[in-house]
Amino acid sequence: MSARAKGDPVPLLSDLIACPSVTPAEAGVFDVLEAVLEPLGFATTRVVFEGDGSYPVGNLFAIRGTGGKRLLFAGHTDVVPPGDMGDWTGPPFAPEIRDGRIFGRGAADMKSGIAAFVAAVETAIADGSADQGTIALAITNDEEADAVNGTEKLIAWARAQGHEFDFAIVGEPSATATVGDSIKVGRRGSLNGQIVVTGLQGHVAYPDKANNPLPVVAGLVTALSRTPIDEGTEHFPRSNLEVTSIDVGNQTTNVIPARGTIRFNIRFNDLWTPESLGDWIAGRIASVEARGCEIAFSRVGRPSRSFLSPLGGGVETLAGVIETATGSRPQLSTGGGTSDARFIASYCPVVEFGLPGATMHKADENVLVTDVRQLADLYARFIAAWFVSGND
Amino acid sequence: MSARAKGDPVPLLSDLIACPSVTPAEAGVFDVLEAVLEPLGFATTRVVFEGDGSYPVGNLFAIRGTGGKRLLFAGHTDVVPPGDMGDWTGPPFAPEIRDGRIFGRGAADMKSGIAAFVAAVETAIADGSADQGTIALAITNDEEADAVNGTEKLIAWARAQGHEFDFAIVGEPSATATVGDSIKVGRRGSLNGQIVVTGLQGHVAYPDKANNPLPVVAGLVTALSRTPIDEGTEHFPRSNLEVTSIDVGNQTTNVIPARGTIRFNIRFNDLWTPESLGDWIAGRIASVEARGCEIAFSRVGRPSRSFLSPLGGGVETLAGVIETATGSRPQLSTGGGTSDARFIASYCPVVEFGLPGATMHKADENVLVTDVRQLADLYARFIAAWFVSGND
Repeated sequence: MSARAKGDPVPLLSDLIACPSVTPAEAGVFDVLEAVLEPLGFATTRVVFEGDGSYPVGNLFAIRGTGGKRLLFAGHTDVVPPGDMGDWTGPPFAPEIRDGRIFGRGAADMKSGIAAFVAAVETAIADGSADQGTIALAITNDEEADAVNGTEKLIAWARAQGHEFDFAIVGEPSATATVGDSIKVGRRGSLNGQIVVTGLQGHVAYPDKANNPLPVVAGLVTALSRTPIDEGTEHFPRSNLEVTSIDVGNQTTNVIPARGTIRFNIRFNDLWTPESLGDWIAGRIASVEARGCEIAFSRVGRPSRSFLSPLGGGVETLAGVIETATGSRPQLSTGGGTSDARFIASYCPVVEFGLPGATMHKADENVLVTDVRQLADLYARFIAAWFVSGND
Repeated sequence: MSARAKGDPVPLLSDLIACPSVTPAEAGVFDVLEAVLEPLGFATTRVVFEGDGSYPVGNLFAIRGTGGKRLLFAGHTDVVPPGDMGDWTGPPFAPEIRDGRIFGRGAADMKSGIAAFVAAVETAIADGSADQGTIALAITNDEEADAVNGTEKLIAWARAQGHEFDFAIVGEPSATATVGDSIKVGRRGSLNGQIVVTGLQGHVAYPDKANNPLPVVAGLVTALSRTPIDEGTEHFPRSNLEVTSIDVGNQTTNVIPARGTIRFNIRFNDLWTPESLGDWIAGRIASVEARGCEIAFSRVGRPSRSFLSPLGGGVETLAGVIETATGSRPQLSTGGGTSDARFIASYCPVVEFGLPGATMHKADENVLVTDVRQLADLYARFIAAWFVSGND
């Protein structure tokens, strides 16, 4: 373990990168975290979740304090595989600092977020602010792959243990270009759907004895993909549908096929729920002449709901802290793909706030050492400000 | 070999059915034919064609006489597999006569046509009419499968040997319900096409960084399948396009695919050639907004041309013979799928004239014995009438 100065995230980040914790291998990463958290007064619990069609996953819950406001930090220790080693300048799991940057798999996504938060807690303990409230960490070792036995179950487990939270920060790389330029305050929801159109198979030479479903398939694709779903909202872009596949699989040139399948994904804003979108889809289907075909819609997998955290409270405190420290007010963003924040949003307000992620999942993944330290400073300022502020 | 009475097609039909000549196995079927044809004065030649991506196929050419009008009879000895034996009442390659019907694979398609024509030649020899002209048979053992090394090459080979024909009959089952109710005097052409639409792959959460080709695919399917090609002609139904497959093969729900492929078939009448249809297709493609996608059309395989035989000459003689014998004038039809007649149409007028084909390719394939004898009688009447008529 690296020599450590209180409040400096870099040694812990190095120790975390040195664990090759490619999902779902822990590779000692929780040992490293516990060894730091327990001396700081955290009670730690490891919980393995399994089943639901996925592999067993280790998770770590840590909590310090009992009173005041309750802050949750959530993140993941697992990393994506390094890919082709030939694309790396140095070894991916032996952290190196060169030209002011720390290199290694997970440097950006998101071992730096965890290290910065732990360093911030050290600072907050040193200045006394940490004792004004309760601080918890919910760390999973599977966010990058199935994400079935990770944050969603860990948060539900913590709630079942009686833990409540007033505000949560997910330490994912969220910045656009510089630390503090953006806070993600919500995410679009995502829904996968499938439509099977069934006609009547037959010979192409006798179309009157068949009923080709493919013109209806085309009509549905047009109706679904060329109709605006909405015009966007104050904090969200327009909801958007993309048809992701159309499949028939008929290799025979003289046969009219019996059926065709459309698959699509909708990313939707806070105007919609999966249920109300189901009605929208049904309306689009009803707008297409079925021409005697059977049209069967079904959802594929579980949709994720859209969420938008309340913009006062912790969001306002965090934005104010950042503005004071950097001189610029962060953008409150809802862009990008889904994240584990969606599993927390139904329990308490949640934001994603972390480093720029330009190199995440790439070879030579790295972050600026000064960025990691600045993030730790901003987290510490937030703890100090929010625990004593009037904001929820 | 069955005991045979001159002019009766049934014993020869039994002997042919007894050969399990599933494409491309000959199973002795040409031995049976030669044993009958050579005593009738036919010179026979067996020719094996191979290559062009298909298996070797046996073919039999037989010719009798040198002067007068030159009549070609074309057909095939191969049969489709019997399928599930449990669906058959009796063994498919052991012909049985029950309730006035002869059962066995090939009974309808089309060993009966061959047997009826040979029996007709026997009759025509007995009454002297056969000697008024030249009679040839071009029999292939692959019409049902690839049909690459069969009739097309056999006819070209015969022409290269110096054989010319004035009229041809293909003995395929062509009747709608009763013997003589229909003569097929032409066929639509067939063209297979493929259109690949290429956009730009990307993540569904960032549609602005991708270009989904599937709305363009849908637009093309609509443009192709909902635009009438023509209104039909005097002897042909409307040309028709059927989209036979749309394929993307994207199993990933969060990826906008790079491309989609449309496959289609056009059955076209005598208003069109494959070349002019290519222009029509290009026009349909041009009518769809490409939205930045690349749209690439290609023909798949070799198109077959449409043809319509001249309705005087042999067609008129045949229609007259049928009307005299049955009391009803046959319908001159151009319906149905493609057939080997298309390979003959560029050399001489050709018709398809054979039995009703209701049981062809099915279990318990059978024909009425009286139908086979009536077909032999009609063929014999045609030989007698056409060789001496003023019709070409």
